[in-house]
Amino acid sequence: MELQIIKSTNLKKKPDIDSLGFGKYFTDHMFIMEYDTGIGWHDAKIVEYGPISLEPTALIFHYGQETFEGLKAYKNNEGKITLFRPKENFERMNRSNERMCMPKIDVDFVHDALVKLLEIEKDWIPEQPGTSLYIRPVMFATEPALGVKISDKYYFIIILSPVGSYYKEGLAPTSIYVEDFYVRASKGGTGEAKCSGNYASGLKPYELAKEKGFAQVLFLDAEDKKYIEEVGTSNAFFVIGDTIVTSPLGGTILPGMTRNSIITIAKDKGYKVEERLVSIDEIMQAGRDNELKEAFATGTAAVISPIGSLTFKDETITINDNKIGAISQELYDTLTGIQMGSIADKYGWVEYLN
Amino acid sequence: MELQIIKSTNLKKKPDIDSLGFGKYFTDHMFIMEYDTGIGWHDAKIVEYGPISLEPTALIFHYGQETFEGLKAYKNNEGKITLFRPKENFERMNRSNERMCMPKIDVDFVHDALVKLLEIEKDWIPEQPGTSLYIRPVMFATEPALGVKISDKYYFIIILSPVGSYYKEGLAPTSIYVEDFYVRASKGGTGEAKCSGNYASGLKPYELAKEKGFAQVLFLDAEDKKYIEEVGTSNAFFVIGDTIVTSPLGGTILPGMTRNSIITIAKDKGYKVEERLVSIDEIMQAGRDNELKEAFATGTAAVISPIGSLTFKDETITINDNKIGAISQELYDTLTGIQMGSIADKYGWVEYLN
Repeated sequence: MELQIIKSTNLKKKPDIDSLGFGKYFTDHMFIMEYDTGIGWHDAKIVEYGPISLEPTALIFHYGQETFEGLKAYKNNEGKITLFRPKENFERMNRSNERMCMPKIDVDFVHDALVKLLEIEKDWIPEQPGTSLYIRPVMFATEPALGVKISDKYYFIIILSPVGSYYKEGLAPTSIYVEDFYVRASKGGTGEAKCSGNYASGLKPYELAKEKGFAQVLFLDAEDKKYIEEVGTSNAFFVIGDTIVTSPLGGTILPGMTRNSIITIAKDKGYKVEERLVSIDEIMQAGRDNELKEAFATGTAAVISPIGSLTFKDETITINDNKIGAISQELYDTLTGIQMGSIADKYGWVEYLN
Repeated sequence: MELQIIKSTNLKKKPDIDSLGFGKYFTDHMFIMEYDTGIGWHDAKIVEYGPISLEPTALIFHYGQETFEGLKAYKNNEGKITLFRPKENFERMNRSNERMCMPKIDVDFVHDALVKLLEIEKDWIPEQPGTSLYIRPVMFATEPALGVKISDKYYFIIILSPVGSYYKEGLAPTSIYVEDFYVRASKGGTGEAKCSGNYASGLKPYELAKEKGFAQVLFLDAEDKKYIEEVGTSNAFFVIGDTIVTSPLGGTILPGMTRNSIITIAKDKGYKVEERLVSIDEIMQAGRDNELKEAFATGTAAVISPIGSLTFKDETITINDNKIGAISQELYDTLTGIQMGSIADKYGWVEYLN
């Protein structure tokens, strides 16, 4: 498939670096391609970022077939434009697509299209520490129809957005509410797919926790309301005694790229890492016993977000005096060091554009 | 709020009655209004049916805040344009909106807007038995943003589509596969909301069942994979001995309008009706014992769809010789009779436009 490039002649003024926030500004161009059953992907092009036109009967508006990804481009310490494990994001999207009955994308093709798009938009990549160009690949059903069906038409789009730090507090620890009614996903559901329904479902418990003064929610499993699932839209890690513990990928949990990177780095540094079921009772008891040394959430946007306290029913445990722990800091520094080029990348994760 | 009407001058040729199918053709006009936090609903208008323009960052494409409804307009036996419990659909939408953190609609206002739209489109209502004008109210998040958040902007749209019979087989019984891995919804999830995520999640098991030669799937509960939830996108009913049994509304099941109408009619006719947990083991045992007299699914599109057989693991039970049962037929005839005006409506369900 050919990639057509139609450059915009109407370039935007770049936003002030301090006003970036997350996902508020978008670059001048986007990548878009279309899919039709029987034809496959076609009309791949880089065009001016702008609105798309859809029938109000497009299936995305009714039955929600959608998958997305999130990754980042950085300018590293030497000014090199850096991507972090980008093909793995597109491979994960294909696994999400499988669950949602959506067609596969050609990973090499969309990767190369992303690189082309980044070359055109390279001046949009902010250079201050903690900033980056957030990359949002998204795919959704566009066929106009009202019957419940697998769509025969899709858009795949890549949007770029210069961003500041995801959490305004930076690495300041957050207060987490353990949610024991609402669930994010259940076995046999769509929890391991990165799809819109999981996020829509999580808005209500997040809102209720916010009203109670918490920064995020921790979800428990749907069957027993017992085992840790995720923190908001991030994977959860706990340092219990000398062991780093995180929930296993059992079908309900997003296989986070940052989760995988953190596990790899931690093992490499000699830490004991366990991927296993971990109950909220075990966590609360470890908290009472002063065995819960650290806790943090991982995700592309925040990398690592320390957890300062956990509130379950009527009990609150404070973790590491509500300060970021040494292991959390070390893992954060190592992963961002690899991303920014100050630490050698022995894993082959980093990809340079220039 | 004022309702602006801008009539199309570009009217479409109406489709051949035999080609209608479900949701393939749309009328000349649609109703649309917009919501902004701080302003509320505004710019309500009836305009030519046509594409809408959205940023590719509109939140519907990423985090899936969406709710919808389905109802029908009929021309009854006397040529009167008939609606069936329309305000209750909009009230249910408001309950769905609550779960999805979306703003409420004014039920009376949208009802009156629907009536105006139907008056304009009355020639689109097909008259043959079994046909109708399907009405699809739909609401979704339109704010351009990439952070996970509750949208501050929404569209609410009403689309009309002339339809034939939903199931091509009409009242012919269908073969159902009992799904024991994939689930539709779980407690604490979005199962009782009419939102896109539930439907997206159900596509995969439906596709797998179709590949095995079945017409639909029956979902079990997420916790125990034991209790009956729904059949595809319909509520499930079983006649066990002399009792009509259906699953209770426990948070995971859509509170179907047809479900409620059928329960009301059945009780009124003197049938014993139980809304209670019913396990797949009970159903299969009743099948073996010849106590499972009838089974059917209810929904707006199909009204009643008889179930001819149930396959659970390696066992298939055939119900009523794979023919529609007397009670199913009686309930179908009564409900459609009320809708078409041949049976007096003592419930106040029917609303006439002319």
